[in-house]
Amino acid sequence: MQPPRGTRDFGPDEMAARRALEERLRSVFRAYNYREVQTPTFEDLELFLAKSGPGIREEIYDFKDKSDRELALRPELTAPVMRYYFSTLKMQPKPIRLFYFGPCFRYDRPQAGRYREFWQMGCELIGDDTPEAHAELVRLALDLFEAAGLEDYHLRLGHLSILRALLEDLGFPVAEQAPLMRLIDKKELDGLRKALSVKAQGAKLDAFMRVFDYTRLEELHDVARTGRAKEAYDHLARVFGNLAAFGVDASKVRVDPTIARGLEYYAGLVFELDAPFLGAEKQLLGGGAYDLSGVFQQPPVACVGFALGFDRTLVALEKKGVKAGGEDVVDAYVAALDADARPALLRAVHELRRLGHRIELESGAVALKKALQRATTVRARLAVFAGAKETQRGVVTVKNLANGDQSELATTGLVPGLDAAIRAAARSGPR
Amino acid sequence: MQPPRGTRDFGPDEMAARRALEERLRSVFRAYNYREVQTPTFEDLELFLAKSGPGIREEIYDFKDKSDRELALRPELTAPVMRYYFSTLKMQPKPIRLFYFGPCFRYDRPQAGRYREFWQMGCELIGDDTPEAHAELVRLALDLFEAAGLEDYHLRLGHLSILRALLEDLGFPVAEQAPLMRLIDKKELDGLRKALSVKAQGAKLDAFMRVFDYTRLEELHDVARTGRAKEAYDHLARVFGNLAAFGVDASKVRVDPTIARGLEYYAGLVFELDAPFLGAEKQLLGGGAYDLSGVFQQPPVACVGFALGFDRTLVALEKKGVKAGGEDVVDAYVAALDADARPALLRAVHELRRLGHRIELESGAVALKKALQRATTVRARLAVFAGAKETQRGVVTVKNLANGDQSELATTGLVPGLDAAIRAAARSGPR
Repeated sequence: MQPPRGTRDFGPDEMAARRALEERLRSVFRAYNYREVQTPTFEDLELFLAKSGPGIREEIYDFKDKSDRELALRPELTAPVMRYYFSTLKMQPKPIRLFYFGPCFRYDRPQAGRYREFWQMGCELIGDDTPEAHAELVRLALDLFEAAGLEDYHLRLGHLSILRALLEDLGFPVAEQAPLMRLIDKKELDGLRKALSVKAQGAKLDAFMRVFDYTRLEELHDVARTGRAKEAYDHLARVFGNLAAFGVDASKVRVDPTIARGLEYYAGLVFELDAPFLGAEKQLLGGGAYDLSGVFQQPPVACVGFALGFDRTLVALEKKGVKAGGEDVVDAYVAALDADARPALLRAVHELRRLGHRIELESGAVALKKALQRATTVRARLAVFAGAKETQRGVVTVKNLANGDQSELATTGLVPGLDAAIRAAARSGPR
Repeated sequence: MQPPRGTRDFGPDEMAARRALEERLRSVFRAYNYREVQTPTFEDLELFLAKSGPGIREEIYDFKDKSDRELALRPELTAPVMRYYFSTLKMQPKPIRLFYFGPCFRYDRPQAGRYREFWQMGCELIGDDTPEAHAELVRLALDLFEAAGLEDYHLRLGHLSILRALLEDLGFPVAEQAPLMRLIDKKELDGLRKALSVKAQGAKLDAFMRVFDYTRLEELHDVARTGRAKEAYDHLARVFGNLAAFGVDASKVRVDPTIARGLEYYAGLVFELDAPFLGAEKQLLGGGAYDLSGVFQQPPVACVGFALGFDRTLVALEKKGVKAGGEDVVDAYVAALDADARPALLRAVHELRRLGHRIELESGAVALKKALQRATTVRARLAVFAGAKETQRGVVTVKNLANGDQSELATTGLVPGLDAAIRAAARSGPR
């Protein structure tokens, strides 16, 4: 009776919080004129092999369908979204801004905070690689967490051309950098120093290793003075300039020239956002500039995007005690204490629901005591009930469960009366 | 570059419509105090075998994971939701009202309107099988389509005890009814008549076959006069009585004693909702009373629920020209025609987005003509731009793209000015 290993059921309270966060984040994407797209839950396995290499197969759910098609549950959404772009949108005027939200899957040893089915929300900006566009994307990433209500986070910005130029200076041409980039991505600095010491030693190696402590743009100035490194520095400087114009809190954004990202298709700007209080699982968002056109045998197109870990963001909010909203409040619990009272109550309940109120209706004729118990159980603001006595007198009884106040309403005009009572209880009540 | 066979990509316009419909339907479930739950995209294969028998395997995506676990992409959501109920909620006070929304999967020959990945929204009411509760569930089903904006539909209500009693009268005990129920479910009336004629002929068989034309409760009265058939008739009569009290339009609900439902676990009330103008794929919703406790070796619990075909409902709305809302309107397109104009515009754009406005920001310094082209392309209400001339004078130009009106706003007070201009354009504009 348990869900499969590494997957989860989400109960009503969790789902209310998840849907509330989803809707908040979606509003931010919309405000930046990103438009939502949705791709299938599974894709041809080939798509992910072409993007990430054969090694990805060990980390994903791949399977054959009944016609022996090789399929895979998607491990991420950038490749599917770019497949959609190249198949359908590539002739449209650029830039094109797309966002997505949905479950992704990895075959991984389940551990704290890592699941086999997890949710990602993210976006792709296609056809604009100016520093101005990159700054707007970073502003968007920050706004997502502001909208979520998280305060304790920061974003690190780097540029792969700087990192690659530094490695070249040490004697490692791009073709030899892959194993180094993996060590850098995992921040295995001892292993990195050892691997580098084959070709670089002494002051030169020490100077490189110091870059791992840099957090301010100015610190980079002297290590990125020529060629592509200088261009990358200038790009980063313009991104920071635009972020300031956007009103970004400078304490929230720092430089990190040692972001390598695990994925080989990144080139240029890269960034990661952390909530440090989460420890090992602190990264909530990661992204950068990339070009996947080769996967689809298409002409190059400049892209930049990021993905936000939805589950981990919820964990961060929960740890900080931030309510994403979406508390489940029942506006009224309505019970007919005998059958004669029922028709008038049913009509009113239907109208109140059309007004957007959340009403639980008792299906049977129940005793008053049981009705009040149920109203409390479902956390209703009001209990509304009527029995034989009330029906004869043409009224219903309304009890405010927060303060115990009890009053009567005439069955003529019941809908506006209850509508007003619900609004009053919502304004005053702690529920 | 195409999605896997039988699956679809949803572009921005489709997604806007889908999310708008999703949210409308969700609001209705919430008004009835149903609470959303979410289960994994795949389950242990055993769950669906236990519920539907070994034959289901031919119709679903089943696969082994890397530890040889037998898994299956869920073909429906009632079994997973009931698994969740028995594992987690069974001790909570009843009734319990749950709803869900998500993709389901079937391995099926793709055909018009039938996909291998499709979306279902549905609900389960656990622990209440009174006619009053059943009526409220039917009222909820009807409200979903009212909220969606569909008008041309009707719901058919039946009760399996009546159908089974009629078959017993013809000489077929329950143990022999399965093949007959399948013929009835598919409305293969010639085949049914032939199968029945082994034991029943003449006037008796004719009388049974006439039941297929019944649409009113009164027509059933004489064929359901004793035993469980009579109880079922009385149950249906009370459901109809409650529907009337709920203000249900009588033309929207009819009796159909020949609903068999394909699924053997149904018992008691059954119902289906059709949009007749859709032809063969007309059924938009189906449901009924059931008890899945046996699948989980648990004590019996009365359940009733339904599932709504989300994709097909969208097709119905589209055929009828009903907009589910969610049109993508860009409130303003904002361009700095030179770099000096940019900082003031960036600050304003950020504030306007926080106010909920949807703003597309041009990343580069562009010519006026190109800016106006882009504003038209993205269907913006307003184009907002400033160049050297405007910057010197401390203003920006605002052009209403619906009527061509052009005016200037001071950069001091730009946010309230643009906020007001956007609101005015939204009120008057056709976009």
